[in-house]
Amino acid sequence: YKRLRNKVIGVLNHMKAVAEEDPRRVIHSIKMGLALSLISIVYYFNPFYDGFGVSAMWAVLTVVVVFEFTVGATLGKGLNRGIATCIAGALGIAAHHLAGFAGDTAEPVLLGFFVFVLATTASFSRFFPGIKARYDYGVLIFILTFSLVSVSGYRVEKIIELAHQRLSTILIGSFTCVFISVFVCPVWAGEELHKLIALNMEKIADFLEGFGGELFDNNKEHSKDDKSVLQRYKSVLNSKTTEETMANFARWEPKHGSFKFRHPWKQYLKIGAVTRECAYRVDALNGYLNSNVQAPHEFKTKIQEKCTKISVESGKALRELALGITTMTHTNAADEHILNANIYTEELKETLKTSVLANTSLLQVIPVTTVASLLIEITICTEKIAESV
Amino acid sequence: YKRLRNKVIGVLNHMKAVAEEDPRRVIHSIKMGLALSLISIVYYFNPFYDGFGVSAMWAVLTVVVVFEFTVGATLGKGLNRGIATCIAGALGIAAHHLAGFAGDTAEPVLLGFFVFVLATTASFSRFFPGIKARYDYGVLIFILTFSLVSVSGYRVEKIIELAHQRLSTILIGSFTCVFISVFVCPVWAGEELHKLIALNMEKIADFLEGFGGELFDNNKEHSKDDKSVLQRYKSVLNSKTTEETMANFARWEPKHGSFKFRHPWKQYLKIGAVTRECAYRVDALNGYLNSNVQAPHEFKTKIQEKCTKISVESGKALRELALGITTMTHTNAADEHILNANIYTEELKETLKTSVLANTSLLQVIPVTTVASLLIEITICTEKIAESV
Repeated sequence: YKRLRNKVIGVLNHMKAVAEEDPRRVIHSIKMGLALSLISIVYYFNPFYDGFGVSAMWAVLTVVVVFEFTVGATLGKGLNRGIATCIAGALGIAAHHLAGFAGDTAEPVLLGFFVFVLATTASFSRFFPGIKARYDYGVLIFILTFSLVSVSGYRVEKIIELAHQRLSTILIGSFTCVFISVFVCPVWAGEELHKLIALNMEKIADFLEGFGGELFDNNKEHSKDDKSVLQRYKSVLNSKTTEETMANFARWEPKHGSFKFRHPWKQYLKIGAVTRECAYRVDALNGYLNSNVQAPHEFKTKIQEKCTKISVESGKALRELALGITTMTHTNAADEHILNANIYTEELKETLKTSVLANTSLLQVIPVTTVASLLIEITICTEKIAESV
Repeated sequence: YKRLRNKVIGVLNHMKAVAEEDPRRVIHSIKMGLALSLISIVYYFNPFYDGFGVSAMWAVLTVVVVFEFTVGATLGKGLNRGIATCIAGALGIAAHHLAGFAGDTAEPVLLGFFVFVLATTASFSRFFPGIKARYDYGVLIFILTFSLVSVSGYRVEKIIELAHQRLSTILIGSFTCVFISVFVCPVWAGEELHKLIALNMEKIADFLEGFGGELFDNNKEHSKDDKSVLQRYKSVLNSKTTEETMANFARWEPKHGSFKFRHPWKQYLKIGAVTRECAYRVDALNGYLNSNVQAPHEFKTKIQEKCTKISVESGKALRELALGITTMTHTNAADEHILNANIYTEELKETLKTSVLANTSLLQVIPVTTVASLLIEITICTEKIAESV
């Protein structure tokens, strides 16, 4: 009993953690339950919808399958489902008519052939990157509906009435989903993408601002919290897929908040790509964070000051840019920091140029110079980001 | 007309390109068509399956939705669908019975409440990472079936017979999918993952082997092919999601070829992660590929030789490791190259230690030393990879 109790408590804690990580997940679950209960009413009070009959279950099916976390995903799936059903239904009826002319024995063969050809072509089209990104679900529904209509047409006589019923139930289902996801605590994919991009830039800014202080600080008694802030940038490295999915969803969304219908979502992907490039450099820098730098003291202090300044200024510039994205205003606050970073970079270069090391070997200075060199690269990246914002 | 013709030719060329990139895509499409045509036979010759009736369309539906590119994905979806249907069906019937005791007015309210509670809980469980990775589709089908059964139970009297019919058609559909995907030109997710990991290592090896020659070579007349081989590593940077998806699919697959059922797929993910870490360093190196190195000649030649050797040896080691993975044999061929790389690294360090630059400024040597330093890091990464293979 005790073991079972511990397990239950474990699961409950896990649930709490998942819910706290993003409270909208709870809301989404409730919305899903709401949508399903609503659509079930259609089925319960069937007498009002005399025409529907068994087809009403298609409304339930549509709600379960179409309802997604973000508005964009729900809209995209709903539209895909609705349009694909229309086209495939029409084609299916046409195929059924055509096969009807062929006579009783040839009809099933011909219908089978049609299904084979269309299913093969449509399956193949799903490998096209452009179709995969936005219409994958539509093609799936197209294959499904075409096979069902053309094949069931062979049995059921009142095929057009059936198609009409099914279409209206699917439309009701889709509409319910879209309605609930837009009007009850909506989660916009566009807004998510917007926040994600700004957050990623902030994470790198966190690292850069913290890095300057950490690197040459030999005091190893840092709190763990401090370290984990520095490591937050790691999630930026693998953010590509999430960003692309979000952008695809966002393209389905209508005007909301300060985003227009044809908001330049691709621009976000570009900013994301440059940010990621910057993160790769940061990852390389991170490798030097724990290495013990053993350069001669005098030289070290000279370089240290510049490096810290470059790092902090780049970090500040990124933070300003992130803030600019969040508030959607165009400020010049970042430019100043970039200018500063560039000035310090020039100074660093000057220092490196003038310091001829007579009595120290190259090996000892390498970590320091590498860090300096990577920081210069990051400054360049920061400028690129500033340009594309 | 000419414009239309050009467009058609464009689409055809695009299709050819997609097909040539991976010819198995064509085979997959044909398999899909085959599976659908096969299952349609069940529907055509309905008299043999007197019990099925309208439920036969569930077989068609199952085939369209479950059939996937890899065996693992198909098996996973098929099993998820089958098991979820069983559990949800049983629960649905139970809910229907329970609600039956409540009387005519309370019944729909109680059923609606059950649907709401189960749909909300199940939707929430989809946010758990462990469930999302392997059972996402199963939970979806669970919600779907439970709502359909408990709600349709309110109308249809012969609910158990219906559940029985639906279950058998879904099983027939799933079985057809699994059968065709396993026995007609199967694409195993495990094998794909295996190849992908080895290919990624080879891509980095390509870069490292080519890098040594390119870096200090001032002859800028390289063919474009050469450059593109060097840039192939870029795809490794974002391979995380693909690898994880493949590993999830692979876990569903039975013994095939030289892979057992419980093959240590997680090990592949670890190797993949280290390879990616190596790729980040390579990306940082790549930044120096096009920079003009202006170090003094004598010093440059000294370093150049070592760097090239380290790079080539690391590349060779990676290639041997990749070969070891591909052939699934454990050879010591890579160890030798790693040993060499380490020897050269030590030599490089020695050279750097002894060369005291009296008349050159630090700034000029920075690119060279950074490259050296990054290469040393890559050697360490290579060793890590060798350890985990």
